[in-house]
Amino acid sequence: MIHITRRERFNAAHRLFRADYSDEKNNEVFGKCSNPNWHGHNYELFVTVKGDINNETGFLINLKVLSKIIKTNVINKLDHKNINLEVDFMKGKLASTENLAVSIWNELEDNVNVLGAELHCVKVVESENNFIEYYG
Amino acid sequence: MIHITRRERFNAAHRLFRADYSDEKNNEVFGKCSNPNWHGHNYELFVTVKGDINNETGFLINLKVLSKIIKTNVINKLDHKNINLEVDFMKGKLASTENLAVSIWNELEDNVNVLGAELHCVKVVESENNFIEYYG
Amino acid sequence: MIHITRRERFNAAHRLFRADYSDEKNNEVFGKCSNPNWHGHNYELFVTVKGDINNETGFLINLKVLSKIIKTNVINKLDHKNINLEVDFMKGKLASTENLAVSIWNELEDNVNVLGAELHCVKVVESENNFIEYYG
Amino acid sequence: MIHITRRERFNAAHRLFRADYSDEKNNEVFGKCSNPNWHGHNYELFVTVKGDINNETGFLINLKVLSKIIKTNVINKLDHKNINLEVDFMKGKLASTENLAVSIWNELEDNVNVLGAELHCVKVVESENNFIEYYG
Amino acid sequence: MIHITRRERFNAAHRLFRADYSDEKNNEVFGKCSNPNWHGHNYELFVTVKGDINNETGFLINLKVLSKIIKTNVINKLDHKNINLEVDFMKGKLASTENLAVSIWNELEDNVNVLGAELHCVKVVESENNFIEYYG
Amino acid sequence: MIHITRRERFNAAHRLFRADYSDEKNNEVFGKCSNPNWHGHNYELFVTVKGDINNETGFLINLKVLSKIIKTNVINKLDHKNINLEVDFMKGKLASTENLAVSIWNELEDNVNVLGAELHCVKVVESENNFIEYYG
Repeated sequence: MIHITRRERFNAAHRLFRADYSDEKNNEVFGKCSNPNWHGHNYELFVTVKGDINNETGFLINLKVLSKIIKTNVINKLDHKNINLEVDFMKGKLASTENLAVSIWNELEDNVNVLGAELHCVKVVESENNFIEYYG
Repeated sequence: MIHITRRERFNAAHRLFRADYSDEKNNEVFGKCSNPNWHGHNYELFVTVKGDINNETGFLINLKVLSKIIKTNVINKLDHKNINLEVDFMKGKLASTENLAVSIWNELEDNVNVLGAELHCVKVVESENNFIEYYG
Repeated sequence: MIHITRRERFNAAHRLFRADYSDEKNNEVFGKCSNPNWHGHNYELFVTVKGDINNETGFLINLKVLSKIIKTNVINKLDHKNINLEVDFMKGKLASTENLAVSIWNELEDNVNVLGAELHCVKVVESENNFIEYYG
Repeated sequence: MIHITRRERFNAAHRLFRADYSDEKNNEVFGKCSNPNWHGHNYELFVTVKGDINNETGFLINLKVLSKIIKTNVINKLDHKNINLEVDFMKGKLASTENLAVSIWNELEDNVNVLGAELHCVKVVESENNFIEYYG
Repeated sequence: MIHITRRERFNAAHRLFRADYSDEKNNEVFGKCSNPNWHGHNYELFVTVKGDINNETGFLINLKVLSKIIKTNVINKLDHKNINLEVDFMKGKLASTENLAVSIWNELEDNVNVLGAELHCVKVVESENNFIEYYG
Repeated sequence: MIHITRRERFNAAHRLFRADYSDEKNNEVFGKCSNPNWHGHNYELFVTVKGDINNETGFLINLKVLSKIIKTNVINKLDHKNINLEVDFMKGKLASTENLAVSIWNELEDNVNVLGAELHCVKVVESENNFIEYYG
């Protein structure tokens, strides 16, 4: 059993708020992250998959294929987008990094399984000081 | 003569577009950076000042003072903001990193001069692959 | 279950030695880290907590609260200090990064539990080539 | 139980290919990594060992000793070498990062055990976007 | 006048040696970098251009265009290649990072001028400890 | 003319204070950096030299020789030392990063000249947020 990790990146705008909260309440709970005019981040996404090495290729998984799966299912939907308004798999969810990591996992899991590997971890880095890891 | 550099960071949303361009033209010139729903970045700002070492303190400039000047005049106006809509010193300008660097220089120059030092460079890092430097 | 990590930093002086060792023995066991005049590091501290996402906020834990807990209980006691002489929770212990990681865990565990989350890992990075992880 | 990680680095040339594949097949499976004239990388190697803290020294393991073991058994055999042609422990294996990580584990395991610690993870970073982890 | 920098990356094999030197002399002058079986690096290339901001676009230069120029003229010729054997603009030159930086400058200068900007610096990073800058 | 930069690192303890200041005054001017029990840093030192490429070797300067000069004259005197108490070239000077950069320049200038190159810049990085550059 071996683990391989691929890093991809995306830039996006988002806002943390609840429509059923007053502006005051949103500000109290989410602080400046609730700014109605949005703010944004350079996100880093680390996707780790695990499985056995294929003796013929020496690979667990072809990294080009893994990269393409991540781009098609996740990056192309998030990059240079507004997470609250434009990302189908985040519709109706609070645009927190926690929810983002879980939703990215759900987008990737089946697509990784098809390759004969197993999704192990989705890590989303929001800034040099904060990151989320989800193991399913 | 010595150079000292202080790094500060801010997260912001922005959009590249011209109101006098059609959507098509905006997309042609600015690509996905023209997304009407905004996107964003973790920006890094490196401010370099130069001057002589003060023999009494061994400092060119007190870094806490420099940091406070940058935060008061620049970071607090940009962090968790929408550069197009909310930043007084970017009003009426295209929200490019080039214009951002020049505008930050203008906000800082007099405030650094007052400290007996000279502003040397404003560097704005938009992503790990792109950055702008302005020397006045 | 999700994991969230917060990075904080501190600069400190320390020395590795045993009072019951001769200078020669200290030098043999601890090398230049036993210098009686101290040396120091820029330490990075990564604190990982785990738990369930709060459906109302989309958070596992409010990062501002977590950051405040780490600063109050750990960073303020270590930053710009001498680990051997001035840090209450390191009194009587060898100032190794291993002992530092365990002691930081002990300072944080109860304070994290109160927030409804669980402390998962304390990682202390001493240099770009060396780091310690403690999982309790 | 505590974990300590040491980073070492090496630069090497390699090529991914099978002698029993045609050039076309090699190119199809391994892409530009199959270039017969070789290419290369700055590899980073992170070796994590685990065990109990020695109360007398405050160490899990003396990092100088760990570093020496890694250099003698791994780095000196890989640094500025051709992985396919010159590295004894890679002879007859596809020079993938996956196989490299497993082979490095095998070179280190007994040498770490002798020190009274246990090898926990070998992580090989091939580029800023790709890395492999092997846990035995 | 403003400066903009674009980073691109390439992986390549190379060897430092002179055909008119004996093996001993090559080893004496170039050390393990003269290994006849090659070694390699992850190179980082930072290309800085300077000029005036275009008032209509807020850009000095369109970064996508700059990136394409660098990829077409430099990266595609170097990435996953053997610098000594396969790179037209390095033919007959010692494959040192110094010569690489000068040669990359020569490949880029006219192509940047055509865009109405001026090439300012080519920086080639060979490892985290070594880099070359060439200003023409 | 080409520029080459070598990075070296050292860990050291220091304190900012004046013996002719009261404790209160030292605290007012130097803040927590004046702690009488010392603190410390992982310093990074970037030494840039410039000159012409030697046509026979393709080098501006042999990096191993440059590294040895930096280690002999600077790193070995600073690493795991107390800058205020133990470093000959800092005796009688305030242990600021500014003074450190100038003093390191003075230690290196003649030694670089002997190699047929010219010292261009000494950059001392004290933390990820602060660094000093000295150009002589």
